[in-house]
Amino acid sequence: MRFTSEQRLDDGLLEREFTLGEIPGILWTPASASAPVPLILLGYPPLGMHKMYPRLVARARRSAADGFAAATIELPESGDRPRSAATEQARADLQGALEAGEPVSDEIVGRLVLPGVEKAVPEWQATMDALLSLPEIGGPVGYSGGVISIGIRLAVVEPRISAAVLFAGSFVPRVLFEEARQVTIPLHVLLQWDDEGNDRQMALDLFDAFGSKEKTLNANMGGHTGVPQSAGDAAARFFTRHLS
Amino acid sequence: MRFTSEQRLDDGLLEREFTLGEIPGILWTPASASAPVPLILLGYPPLGMHKMYPRLVARARRSAADGFAAATIELPESGDRPRSAATEQARADLQGALEAGEPVSDEIVGRLVLPGVEKAVPEWQATMDALLSLPEIGGPVGYSGGVISIGIRLAVVEPRISAAVLFAGSFVPRVLFEEARQVTIPLHVLLQWDDEGNDRQMALDLFDAFGSKEKTLNANMGGHTGVPQSAGDAAARFFTRHLS
Repeated sequence: MRFTSEQRLDDGLLEREFTLGEIPGILWTPASASAPVPLILLGYPPLGMHKMYPRLVARARRSAADGFAAATIELPESGDRPRSAATEQARADLQGALEAGEPVSDEIVGRLVLPGVEKAVPEWQATMDALLSLPEIGGPVGYSGGVISIGIRLAVVEPRISAAVLFAGSFVPRVLFEEARQVTIPLHVLLQWDDEGNDRQMALDLFDAFGSKEKTLNANMGGHTGVPQSAGDAAARFFTRHLS
Repeated sequence: MRFTSEQRLDDGLLEREFTLGEIPGILWTPASASAPVPLILLGYPPLGMHKMYPRLVARARRSAADGFAAATIELPESGDRPRSAATEQARADLQGALEAGEPVSDEIVGRLVLPGVEKAVPEWQATMDALLSLPEIGGPVGYSGGVISIGIRLAVVEPRISAAVLFAGSFVPRVLFEEARQVTIPLHVLLQWDDEGNDRQMALDLFDAFGSKEKTLNANMGGHTGVPQSAGDAAARFFTRHLS
């Protein structure tokens, strides 16, 4: 991992951009910390890390206020990273099904989601290897965010993830429902009740499927991007309970 | 309203028992308050106010810590109040359906729930009349708790109720689903995912039915009495946002 830039934001938050091999990322650490701090990995829809920056830095500020470092990486096929023709085709097929008013087949969802999960999970793990070797970052590690399928796989395969806030805001292939049963860490699942890009019943079934003994569903009115402040606060308190 | 006893609890909370006509009740007010405080009405399953006292006083302590008064009354057919043969019959019919593994008909649920709603709602309103006339209590008023059907009716007919925490832990007759569509106040709905005395899909349908623009579903693992501390905290913060 190589740091490529460093700046103090106005509230003292230290923001450092880095590259991990080919992958760009951003690390935020609290203004002052006397001991190594826990880490929250910030997931997001793969629309480009810099395009998503305003929302990511807001989440990082809240994490830092609670005593946590936060980090994100450019996801596969996000930002300037190369696109795959297969994903483009899957997205077109999804759009076609939605426009035709047809049910979206698990086959299409699998083609759309699984290649990204396969690539992103080892990249998040390599990011954890690098960040946890820094003296200012300890553990435990939380995963926060969307592309819920990535969060599911990461929670199953990566024992360093201690707790996760998952945003039920995207299609999930059936195979990841099966993996969800293997998840045992504490979960806080956010659901937007009228999410235009998500099937509510699927999200409720997925919440039911998670194997975790401690899981909370926090559902609120509104569409995909309408998560209320109170839900963000509740998610932050979940991390404070489980990572502090 | 007539106060019948008064004591300071160890944390300074003032607890006063009262009677309102024939109906006994308890009022808790914060140790120190320089101005009139908002009021939270504490609902509970009609198993007897004194039997439920440990849980009620715990909720009152939390309310007082947040700057609110709290009050409860003995519900119809609860505690020493007279039972109705019709309710006993409805309860036996419900039990019979459950033991036979049959679906519980709306007719049985209506007989079980509606008479209590019809009696309890004007009693809560008379309680509000009395308590809001005390100099130490102002507004707004929140309703908290179970017998969700009482909370629904109260939210529809009583404009002094500004926000409600509703516990989706009991059967709700269809007619109250229709009334739920008329509810417009902010709602925070608690659901125990594996509640043995409740139908999960019915609870989700009811949450969907509420007309409120601002409503949150907070669902947690476990049975009827297993509401986790974090869910109680979230409910308390909801009142702080809406009654303070």
